[in-house]
Order: sequence, then C-alpha cells, then structure tokens
Amino acid sequence: MDEKTKKALMDIVGEENFTDSLIDLVSYSYDASEHSHRPSCAVWAETPEQVSGILKLADTERIPVIPRGAGTGLSGMSVPIEGGIVLDLNHMNKILKISIEDRLAVVQPGVVYDDLERALVPHGFFFPPDPASGKVCTLGGNVATNAGGLKGAKYGTTRDYVLGLQVVLTDGRIMRTGSKTMKSVSGYDMTKLLVGSEGTLGVITEITLKISPKPTATSTALATFGNLEDAGRALSETMYSGIIPSALEILGRKTILAINQNTDLNLPEVDAIILVETDGYTREETDYQMNKVIEVFKKNNADDIKQAKAREEAEKLWTARKSAYAVLARIKTHFVLEDITVPMSRIAEMLKGVEAIAERHNIQIATYGHAGDGNLHPQILYDGYDPEQVKSMEAATAELFKLSIDLGGTLTGEHGIGLSKASFMTLEHDPVAMDMMRSIKKTFDPNNILNPAKMGLEE
Amino acid sequence: MDEKTKKALMDIVGEENFTDSLIDLVSYSYDASEHSHRPSCAVWAETPEQVSGILKLADTERIPVIPRGAGTGLSGMSVPIEGGIVLDLNHMNKILKISIEDRLAVVQPGVVYDDLERALVPHGFFFPPDPASGKVCTLGGNVATNAGGLKGAKYGTTRDYVLGLQVVLTDGRIMRTGSKTMKSVSGYDMTKLLVGSEGTLGVITEITLKISPKPTATSTALATFGNLEDAGRALSETMYSGIIPSALEILGRKTILAINQNTDLNLPEVDAIILVETDGYTREETDYQMNKVIEVFKKNNADDIKQAKAREEAEKLWTARKSAYAVLARIKTHFVLEDITVPMSRIAEMLKGVEAIAERHNIQIATYGHAGDGNLHPQILYDGYDPEQVKSMEAATAELFKLSIDLGGTLTGEHGIGLSKASFMTLEHDPVAMDMMRSIKKTFDPNNILNPAKMGLEE
Repeated sequence: MDEKTKKALMDIVGEENFTDSLIDLVSYSYDASEHSHRPSCAVWAETPEQVSGILKLADTERIPVIPRGAGTGLSGMSVPIEGGIVLDLNHMNKILKISIEDRLAVVQPGVVYDDLERALVPHGFFFPPDPASGKVCTLGGNVATNAGGLKGAKYGTTRDYVLGLQVVLTDGRIMRTGSKTMKSVSGYDMTKLLVGSEGTLGVITEITLKISPKPTATSTALATFGNLEDAGRALSETMYSGIIPSALEILGRKTILAINQNTDLNLPEVDAIILVETDGYTREETDYQMNKVIEVFKKNNADDIKQAKAREEAEKLWTARKSAYAVLARIKTHFVLEDITVPMSRIAEMLKGVEAIAERHNIQIATYGHAGDGNLHPQILYDGYDPEQVKSMEAATAELFKLSIDLGGTLTGEHGIGLSKASFMTLEHDPVAMDMMRSIKKTFDPNNILNPAKMGLEE
Repeated sequence: MDEKTKKALMDIVGEENFTDSLIDLVSYSYDASEHSHRPSCAVWAETPEQVSGILKLADTERIPVIPRGAGTGLSGMSVPIEGGIVLDLNHMNKILKISIEDRLAVVQPGVVYDDLERALVPHGFFFPPDPASGKVCTLGGNVATNAGGLKGAKYGTTRDYVLGLQVVLTDGRIMRTGSKTMKSVSGYDMTKLLVGSEGTLGVITEITLKISPKPTATSTALATFGNLEDAGRALSETMYSGIIPSALEILGRKTILAINQNTDLNLPEVDAIILVETDGYTREETDYQMNKVIEVFKKNNADDIKQAKAREEAEKLWTARKSAYAVLARIKTHFVLEDITVPMSRIAEMLKGVEAIAERHNIQIATYGHAGDGNLHPQILYDGYDPEQVKSMEAATAELFKLSIDLGGTLTGEHGIGLSKASFMTLEHDPVAMDMMRSIKKTFDPNNILNPAKMGLEE
C-alpha cells in the first residue's frame, strides 16, 4: 500500500486509529480458523462517516476491505486473504438504546454479545441467539455471520432478531434497511439478505434487534447413552414429541473425555451424553416438557437420566458444554471445527458417519453440537506440522461435507462459508443459485473490494 | 397480445389452461384491493417447466407476467396494472411432503393455507402465521407477501418459517434456495429476500416450510375499555409485562358495532375491546401468563374482564375477530384496509391519531388489528361513487401513512406495498435504500416483466 493511501486513511480515522505495525498486522492475519494472511494495514473506525470515507477510498483504489469484529469466526471470514485494509469495528461499541416498551435494542456493531445480555438482565429480557463465544464475540459479527447457538431450536438464530440495519455501501453511501417495528413488509427485505453476508455486501454500522422476555423457569437434565444410534434416535424423537426444548445438546465420547480432563465435572464416560433444557414461566410447564423428553430418552435406551436439582448444577453443565471447543482445542496442535447440519431424522446416520470417517482416515474427531436443530460440531484434531495428518484432515473434512449434503443437509448451520467451505459451495447450491448470489454480490460491490475471495463467489 | 404469442402460450400449458375470455379477464383484473386492470390473458401452470417456458417467452417478448394465488391481497399486488399474462398458480396445489420428524412441509404454491393446517392437525403440529384469509389464501401468496396474522407477536410471520424455495427466474432458469435443515448460513439468504417480494423477483414453484408442535393449552379473555388511550396503554404494557401472549387483538367501537350487526355475539358496545390468548402446554402456564395480562388490564382501567370458560366460547371470539374485515366491508360500497404498524410504545397515539384523522376528513374509519406487534388495521369505509368521499379517503390514507412514519412505524406490517402504497415508499425508505431495491429488481428481472409497477420501484 502506497504512502499516499496510508496518509488518506489516517486523515479519515486519525493517526492513532491507523496501524501497519508488524505486530498488529500479524494479529489481524488470523481469526479462529486455520487460515491466515496479513493485511496491509488496519484502521479503527468510530463513525459511519469514517466507514464511508474508508470504503469510498478503497473502492476508488480497488483495495480490499475486511470488516472485523472480535475475530472469533471459525471459517476464515475475517482473514484478509488478499491483503488490504482490516476495518476494525470494535471501537463502535455503544448500546445506543434499549427500549423494553418497544421490545428492541439499538446497538453499534462492536458491542460484545454478553454486554448486551447483561444490560437486558435487569429488565427480565434477553437476546436469545446465545453463541458459545458470547463472552467475546461482537453483535456486528453475529449479524454478519448470522450467529447461532444453544437456543437455536426453540428461539432461532440472529437473523430472526434483526429488525433493521444502518449499512455503508462500497461507494460510501449510507442506507437504512428494515424498520423499528416488530414486523414490516415494506419493500425488499435487504436486512435479512445482509444478515449472514459475511461482510461481503456492505459494512454494518448500526443494528436494531428484537429482544424477548426471558422465561423465568427452566428444567435441566443429563442423559447417558451406551451407543450413538440410540442417542441419535432420542434426539430426533424429542424434536417431534410435541414440545421444543430450549436446548438439546449432544456430547460424544471424545468430547466428554476432554471435558473431564480439564474440569472437575466428572461426566460419565459413555458414548454419548445428551443435555436438555426446557423452559417456561412455571414449574409445571418445564416439568411437563421434561417428562416428554425423559419418556423419549427411556424408550431409546438411555442408561441414566439425571435432572439437575439446583440452578448452579444446571449452570455447571452448560458451562461444561460451552467449554467443549476450548478443551478440545488443546489436545492437538491444530484443529478444525465443522458445523454440518442435517434434517433431524438423519442425525443418527450423521453421528455414525462421523465415526466412520474418523476411523477411515485414522484421525481424531470429537463431536458435540446443537442437536435440536440438527447442527453437529465435529472438531477434527490433528498435528498441523505432520503433512500426513493435514492430508487426512482435508480428506475427512471433504467427506463430512459430502455426507451432510447426501443426507439432505447443509455445509454450515452457523459458522458460515468464509474461506473454509468456499470450494464446497457448489456441492450444495445449483449453478443458477450460485450465479444469482454472484449477481447480488456484483450489485452491492461491483469492484469486489469487500471481503473478497469469501463464500466461493469468485469464478 | 398477438395470436402468435397466444398460440405459443397454449403450446406451453395446453389449450385448456389458457384463457382470454372476457369473463375470465374481468375476474383476473381484481384482487381484494380497490385497484383493477384487465390482463391480456391468463394461464394455469402445472409444472415449474411450464412456468419456465412462460417466463422465457414473456421475457423475450417483453410481456408483463403477474403471478397469482387466491387474489386475496389487499394492496393490488396481483392486479395486472400494465396488462400482460396472469400466471395462475392454483393448479399447483399439492402438499408434496409432510415430515414431522424433520419438522417441515414441502408444498406447491397453490396449496390453501387451511389445507396445510388440516393436514398437520393429526400430528399435533401447525404452521403458525395464521392469516385472517387462511380459508382461501394460498401458501404461494403467503410467501410472496410475507403474510402475517393473529399469532405474529409470539410466532412471527411467514418469512420466519420459509426454509427454502424453488424459484423460476425471468430468463426461465430454475433454482433452489435455502435448505431443508432447520438452519443454514450457506451463502446469501435469497430465500428471505424472495419472501415478501410480491412476485417481482421470480415465480415460486415450491416451498419448504418449517412447522411447529402446537401448544395444547390456551387461555382466552376479553376486556372492555371506556377509552382508547387506556386500551392503547394496556396493549403496550402487556407486551413488556414479561410474557408474550399468543394473540393480542384490539377491536374499536365501529368494528364492534359492525360485528354485532352481523353476528349473534352481542359484544359489549364500548370504545375498545381487547382479545387476548395465552398458550402453553399446561393450565398453570397459560394461567400464569393470563394473570399477568389481567393485572396490566386492571391497572389501565379495564371496565370488565371476562375469561372464556370453554373452548367453544373462545373460538367464537376469534371467529368474531376474523369476521371484522368482512362485516365492515358491507357497510359502504367501498373500503380500503390499511395495516400501518408502529412501535408498541406508540400504539395509544396511533389509535388516537386514527380517530382524529377520521374526524378531520369526515370519513368512517373502523379500527382493529394485531396489537401485539403494533399492527393496526384501520378500515376506511366510503362511497366510491361519491367523488368527495373518494377524495377524503385518499387524504385520510395519506395522513395515516404519514402519522405511522412519524411515530417510527412502517407503511405496512403484513399487507404489502403493491399498488396501494407504491407512491409512499419514499416516505419510509431513504434514497439509497430505494436505489438498492431497484438494483435488486434489475438483477433478478432486467427487463421488468415480473409484476411491473409494483412496490414503487419504477422511477
């Protein structure tokens, strides 16, 4: 990047909000995926007008711009794979408004998920998506990736809660999409199109979110299964037993072992544990639902079913579940975390398939996931310095994707395409759909400066 | 339309599925709005391939194509205002698959809402949007307009349930969008963009819908209010009392009178009635929620609160509510039904504003609506043969829209823009958003043949 451009960027954001120091560039070359590439520089923007100035400049000069939140993405979507400017939005971290009366929150993109959650607690409200990285991930990133989480089966994902956006387009124009009302059918829903677009269509500078009253009662239980197929069937049958649990998570044997090695939870070391939560406003309601679930578990040969007695006990279980990613990450030098998602009726097959793929390629795959919406997280553990293991990892990944698609599933339930799944897009989408996605990209970003090379949109 | 084109259409759909008889053309010139214009012809398509053939022909010949379901739209979106071919999709009326296990239904666009509902009943599942015209409206129309209904505040609208689509593009290409899984972030969400696009971007030939287990318990109550402001505040406070009712409807005095004149319900003739339903799986849960609501109602000076004792009594109330549109339609020769939607905190102001506008223009406006999501239906009753009244209606309509926008609301919560609100789009959307919507239209329909002149997208 030439000095003139650097100077122009400094003029927009101020010298203190520009960096091209090596240490910063190295930091910005990563996200939570296996990909990395250094940008030319990074800037911290504080206003939509600054974002506008940056994009206008970059668009004229044809320099890639990579919007970035906390960088917790698992698919490489914030890795500046073609260099360019990392546009760090973490300084735009104000909660602009919480209106319990209007059931909405207006936030800047850099607000951390948990900070909004904490602000809602005194009102008895919550923002349901509940991503596992909630302690650090930003709402802008949640929106850009349509983040999901533990409560997806009952409460949906981020997209279901985004009412409107302020967006800066590549030519520097600023627009508002959507509405501050609970529903609107006024014009095309550009809001929902921008959600999950991985920073490739525009830069989100303000978000209006729907929030919900938080149920005041929950029941939590843990069930152990001696084999995966029984567990898979139990999951599937739970979801058509007439109720929807507020969380339904599976932990496979390898995941259980890793959690036990790193915590004092002493989980039973079985083939599969299912964690389930039901919610409502009354004990009768959560019990009614839990009884339905337990009936299904028993029918499907659960060895042991324990209901959490106190709130602390339940919270310990969810903390354990949320730690799965981190404890597994320590086992080998490298890992990739997939998030294939299949129709509920195919979840037993998918679980068995993952085991078979691990065996075939002689590689460790630990599985857990948001089973209530068919979303599994096989975490492939490997030594990235061993070319053989890298090859095995790549072959296993490709087979996981293929199996998911064969079972009527999708490449990604919540982690996004980014770089990791870019080359697999055509496995899932027909040529016409691919072509229309490319046309949409061109409509919003004719010079392909926004987060280029992501989502498999380049031919 | 020349004979050659007619012949080509007959070759595609068969002679028996083509019509240009006067009586048919007159029928197809209307929907449920105040607009009308005759098409050149109408065709019934039975396969995606036929739809493809029709669009290819029309695109080459630059002939407008107006996709049509049951024609129950209230904003003129299926009126062939520039002539052309009405593409009637009612023959594509098969429920292709119901998979309770996978929590989804796959349907053709011509399936009537209630037919799907009936098919789901034996499984204890439902498709929640519940539009008031459910007995006749088609799911293709529901998707094209993002139909909402009585259960919106708790269960959302059609868009929240569409997982995937098969869509025919104007150049005849057929694509699939979305997934058959509960969640997916694989590529741009073209599904949600197409939902609510009013037949202007593509023709929907297959729909994959998420379905939900139906709560087995409900409580219903009716409260009367001596003045609108109290009722408005009661509605708003209910929505932040910590629970979400499964329905929360308001009926204004004029609506109540019309219902009483046409039914044997003998509703109390007061300024406002609020109907409320809470749901769950247990009596305790629905009671808990209803008690919260009743507390709010009492605090806001409800005169009388009656809980429905039996299911039949409750159902009678909902039937009365659903009849509002039809009983009001009989009062004058003409009417327009609006569906302005405001943030919940502004609903009392909106209710008062509607009254003031009616008075100022000396015109009858009866109000009811889905108050739980801030969605009001002022139904303006007028004599369409009296030019003075037509002028008053138009002036009142414009003021309603302006007031809604001034209160932070939207032109339309669920009826769509169509023709009725096309000229008001710029009141709500900034020039950049308008421009991007036009670009999206151009990307999907470069020759502007699909339902032209709708949504205010033409400059």
